[in-house]
Amino acid sequence: MAFNTFGNLLKLTTFGESHGLAIGGVIDGFPAGVTINFEAIQDELDRRKPGQSKIVTQRKEPDTVEFLSGIFEGKTTGTSIGFIIKNTNQKSHDYSHNTDVYRPSHADYTYDKKFGIRDYRGGGRSSARETANWVVAGALAKQLISNITINAYTSSVGDIEMNKEYNQLDFSKTESNIVRCPDEKMAERMINKIKDIRKQGDTIGGTISCVAKNIPVGLGEPIFHKLHAQLGKAMLSLNAVKGFEFGSGFEGTKMQGSSHNDIFNADGTTQTNLSGGIQGGISNGMDIYFRVAFKPVATIMQNQPTINSKGDETEIMGKGRHDPCVVPRAVPVIEALTALVLADFWLLNKTRKK
Amino acid sequence: MAFNTFGNLLKLTTFGESHGLAIGGVIDGFPAGVTINFEAIQDELDRRKPGQSKIVTQRKEPDTVEFLSGIFEGKTTGTSIGFIIKNTNQKSHDYSHNTDVYRPSHADYTYDKKFGIRDYRGGGRSSARETANWVVAGALAKQLISNITINAYTSSVGDIEMNKEYNQLDFSKTESNIVRCPDEKMAERMINKIKDIRKQGDTIGGTISCVAKNIPVGLGEPIFHKLHAQLGKAMLSLNAVKGFEFGSGFEGTKMQGSSHNDIFNADGTTQTNLSGGIQGGISNGMDIYFRVAFKPVATIMQNQPTINSKGDETEIMGKGRHDPCVVPRAVPVIEALTALVLADFWLLNKTRKK
Amino acid sequence: MAFNTFGNLLKLTTFGESHGLAIGGVIDGFPAGVTINFEAIQDELDRRKPGQSKIVTQRKEPDTVEFLSGIFEGKTTGTSIGFIIKNTNQKSHDYSHNTDVYRPSHADYTYDKKFGIRDYRGGGRSSARETANWVVAGALAKQLISNITINAYTSSVGDIEMNKEYNQLDFSKTESNIVRCPDEKMAERMINKIKDIRKQGDTIGGTISCVAKNIPVGLGEPIFHKLHAQLGKAMLSLNAVKGFEFGSGFEGTKMQGSSHNDIFNADGTTQTNLSGGIQGGISNGMDIYFRVAFKPVATIMQNQPTINSKGDETEIMGKGRHDPCVVPRAVPVIEALTALVLADFWLLNKTRKK
Amino acid sequence: MAFNTFGNLLKLTTFGESHGLAIGGVIDGFPAGVTINFEAIQDELDRRKPGQSKIVTQRKEPDTVEFLSGIFEGKTTGTSIGFIIKNTNQKSHDYSHNTDVYRPSHADYTYDKKFGIRDYRGGGRSSARETANWVVAGALAKQLISNITINAYTSSVGDIEMNKEYNQLDFSKTESNIVRCPDEKMAERMINKIKDIRKQGDTIGGTISCVAKNIPVGLGEPIFHKLHAQLGKAMLSLNAVKGFEFGSGFEGTKMQGSSHNDIFNADGTTQTNLSGGIQGGISNGMDIYFRVAFKPVATIMQNQPTINSKGDETEIMGKGRHDPCVVPRAVPVIEALTALVLADFWLLNKTRKK
Repeated sequence: MAFNTFGNLLKLTTFGESHGLAIGGVIDGFPAGVTINFEAIQDELDRRKPGQSKIVTQRKEPDTVEFLSGIFEGKTTGTSIGFIIKNTNQKSHDYSHNTDVYRPSHADYTYDKKFGIRDYRGGGRSSARETANWVVAGALAKQLISNITINAYTSSVGDIEMNKEYNQLDFSKTESNIVRCPDEKMAERMINKIKDIRKQGDTIGGTISCVAKNIPVGLGEPIFHKLHAQLGKAMLSLNAVKGFEFGSGFEGTKMQGSSHNDIFNADGTTQTNLSGGIQGGISNGMDIYFRVAFKPVATIMQNQPTINSKGDETEIMGKGRHDPCVVPRAVPVIEALTALVLADFWLLNKTRKK
Repeated sequence: MAFNTFGNLLKLTTFGESHGLAIGGVIDGFPAGVTINFEAIQDELDRRKPGQSKIVTQRKEPDTVEFLSGIFEGKTTGTSIGFIIKNTNQKSHDYSHNTDVYRPSHADYTYDKKFGIRDYRGGGRSSARETANWVVAGALAKQLISNITINAYTSSVGDIEMNKEYNQLDFSKTESNIVRCPDEKMAERMINKIKDIRKQGDTIGGTISCVAKNIPVGLGEPIFHKLHAQLGKAMLSLNAVKGFEFGSGFEGTKMQGSSHNDIFNADGTTQTNLSGGIQGGISNGMDIYFRVAFKPVATIMQNQPTINSKGDETEIMGKGRHDPCVVPRAVPVIEALTALVLADFWLLNKTRKK
Repeated sequence: MAFNTFGNLLKLTTFGESHGLAIGGVIDGFPAGVTINFEAIQDELDRRKPGQSKIVTQRKEPDTVEFLSGIFEGKTTGTSIGFIIKNTNQKSHDYSHNTDVYRPSHADYTYDKKFGIRDYRGGGRSSARETANWVVAGALAKQLISNITINAYTSSVGDIEMNKEYNQLDFSKTESNIVRCPDEKMAERMINKIKDIRKQGDTIGGTISCVAKNIPVGLGEPIFHKLHAQLGKAMLSLNAVKGFEFGSGFEGTKMQGSSHNDIFNADGTTQTNLSGGIQGGISNGMDIYFRVAFKPVATIMQNQPTINSKGDETEIMGKGRHDPCVVPRAVPVIEALTALVLADFWLLNKTRKK
Repeated sequence: MAFNTFGNLLKLTTFGESHGLAIGGVIDGFPAGVTINFEAIQDELDRRKPGQSKIVTQRKEPDTVEFLSGIFEGKTTGTSIGFIIKNTNQKSHDYSHNTDVYRPSHADYTYDKKFGIRDYRGGGRSSARETANWVVAGALAKQLISNITINAYTSSVGDIEMNKEYNQLDFSKTESNIVRCPDEKMAERMINKIKDIRKQGDTIGGTISCVAKNIPVGLGEPIFHKLHAQLGKAMLSLNAVKGFEFGSGFEGTKMQGSSHNDIFNADGTTQTNLSGGIQGGISNGMDIYFRVAFKPVATIMQNQPTINSKGDETEIMGKGRHDPCVVPRAVPVIEALTALVLADFWLLNKTRKK
């Protein structure tokens, strides 16, 4: 029962609207005695921040995190870690034309009907600005489970899909281009696609793939707390996500058991990894990999018919500065969520055997 | 923090191994004063039970649920509802050859490594027998939110995929065939496919689609308790599931915003429903629909190389009576999980506005 | 959000009415690999069961626990442990005169008003029969934290109060008398008091003290999960409890800091222990001790005026077989709850330091 | 599993050390559409703040709360409410002599042993400064359940105990004196007692009583979520609390059932109220009343022998500005916690009947 909390032992509770004074959160359950690398946290925020390249929103926000508690003399104390990120760029007049209008395929209508009130400034709580909070918490989680490496990358933009398997890719190249695709030729095509879409005043969907390596065997729990189910829930919490698959995913539904089963090597590793590193909800030590589907951003720079809260028909045209494709900035968010999930299960696993 | 509990206000906590004395559970938070239709519950169990047709496992288990508490003179009392389903058909000798052998792509290896012990009889806790518990709870949940209709159906078996949209289908035909596909021609092809696969001693994957209609506006919560994220977590908790998508899903990633946005009608309904009935994590009153991917069953009637717990190489051949395709029996489980999720959010929603 | 669940990592979820088919529960989060002593569990149940002596209710129930899952070949498997205790002695006609009458100072009125329905047979869910479930779970918890010793005992019956400190007592004598007071002279007086009260058709209150020794330093959490707060919540969950105090308790409110402070020895132990083994919500390794207040049992063998559900004035006289004083049978329940709380914090503490 | 969270549907999650940049929290689950009276919140903070009178600590802190989210145009939006209270008066040099020394009967030793690190500035997270967060959340909760009135008051200081029942008191006088006792003669004696104790450089314990009126019937849940158990847990979470009793409390243990039972009137009210407004864990509509025991403050202005983290014997003398008696400033905190508990159960109760 926690609308704004994620996690079980390692818990993130967040608050904040896109145009309020600040967003922020509380990280609870983080073990004591971890030396924190603050630069690494800011680096992750910088990967997510607006204005970082030509293919993302041109809003400028420094997204500087301030820690208020739970870290003392550079180390975690075991008490709750409070933090805020101030909203420095509150151009609320950009949104003033929307106070009463429901933007199509946004959360305006549903928030208003559910709560009887909505903060119309930039989507309020439904804004993806919230994900900056997740990046902060995920960056801390990465430092807790520093043996595990997590690499997300753009695997498609619209119908431009990478056809290479993850193990043919060099993840050190992900950050070398602004779309965050480790295959440079594909990256170029994706970037051009996004630029083209932007020129049309339109938006486009895409997918992000994520790979976690060096996973201990035994993360995840039977029945209602399976590792992939919690990963899926995390990913589906992210704005604009429409689907999640891991291992063989939807393609695997077409296979037969005789070719889908992962045959063991003598050391417990498997010859193939269609399981995606998870069997029966529990990590088997092989790479975990999964793919996340993002719809096209709902705010477009074109006129659209719509209604207002009174049911009057009207028109809306996106103003402000929006992403033509959410995928490049979502890459660090996917990694952050993955780190949060894995760190939580890693803590849990300390308690499961006498 | 609840390995064997699902839900928030309406909670299901379960126990049981496939070859123990009984499986069962506790349903907590169910409101008082609901008259229970026990036959309807047993009907749902019968849709899931083994031995029901030629294309499922030929094990015979009556799967009779016994309620032990929480219902008095036919009505729920508001206290916890305990129930058990006895395991009447414990052919544990079917599995005796597996006591030390890890079956490929099963949970044997991961359970053993995680816990240092495993119940090798029929997969123990990792058996899909557990889902009978879910069907009981889901059948109760359906009676709580009786205005909502939930229809799941088989939408593909292997590469035999239905190409009709859900609104072209007549759900009253789903139960008219043993594969639970409302399109009779497709059903026949699917059934033949499964029979063919079974003859090969092999197994095949598939997908199930699910549609929920007559949904109140406002179910679901911002941020970490989005309706589709909880639906996704529920579905990914089900054995053999590898993926989840809702609304436009993975296909939607290829679209542009201008054609993906659902334009409002004056009454707040939308002309299209690529959102799948959920915007910003909250139901908008349109139909909710989603699709779930199932891998092929891991137990096949063919020799497979594998290892035992000592790391010795050995061979395994499926014995016992297994499903060649999990999909037909999973249809009522998908509905049950959907009902649990929706009922939980329906209760929650009573508390969100003054 | 768990009406019938106690605990965080180690969770007990229960069900059952006093006159239903069975009571029972699910224990979740119990670590794998613990060899279970079943006799020890039954011994604890026997300490709680009715009919054990002249000063408790003369109902006869064997209270035999049946484990249905989670234990395999004598060891816990890490999966949920389901259990039931059948109700063999359902003399529901004993209670038939109460179907519509609210017994004074019972839960009849509040259940009926809250839920609009109540199971009038023996108090239904509000019966202390539920505590047999707790004793089962507590007996398992004791086996998990077997280094810790937990001793509860009757410290007063009515105005007969023991004036010895706990460290002057020999706990091996607690079970040597039927009132469970380790001071034999006091025990005799208490027993006579209860016999006298019973002859009057009346009931009497009392207190139980509890001491836990050999506690590791560090159990408990800052702020909202303090060790003593969780102990207090556990104790206040027990039927008929009206108060809880630990360490210096209510008497300590009269003291000055200069004499109340526990001065350290060089090894971190303290010269006095007015803190009751807990400082800032966290165990300091000294003995934990606390005291629990029980009101007199509400069911008396005398005529009392009361009302029925229609608001008509009527009379009620206790029938059936009831305890004249709840304290002797509550001693093992207090120990069970203490074990559950301590085992839960012990598991939690494995996750709090890197 | 929430070390820094309180509540179930209405949740408060907090952070902050006494000498960090700020304390604060997140209030989740607060219903949408409640118009917030900000002055009333600040008034409650002012009742708790240091420096308010001669008998409390002379530290000066304005304790101004800043809301960062969840309230829009004066009304709650249903999303999480983030807030901070800046620490303006961080005299950390007051505490610098304590960096390595364990203060007797404080949390220094237990935090250090548990976490391997501690924030030694003013007690860090263990400081009662945290309770300012609770007062903020409680003040909001009061506005949600505005029909209910909650009155706490000082009922004893040391051995000066009020002998009047709560219904003989005029709560409008509680704030008329600095010790917050509604009986003016007793108040004077208590104030003199505290002044006397302060002159000795010593501290003294006391008790607070609390009365909640106009309670709806039906708040609270059977078994593990009883209203009084949750109230008890809340109170025992407050710094320096050693005991909790409600209704007849510890005195009730000496009574017989025939005089302890509360006989019904025809309208369902009771002639007496030894039950303290709660039967079977559920409110019966009568006044809820309870009493909380506070030990003497551990920091005294006298030399005390103690040890440091190396086990060396040393001496400590309280410096800084501390309360000689915690009770006067704890009165608004008790009310805040009561409001949080009652509001949470009030929300829950909306979901318990069809």
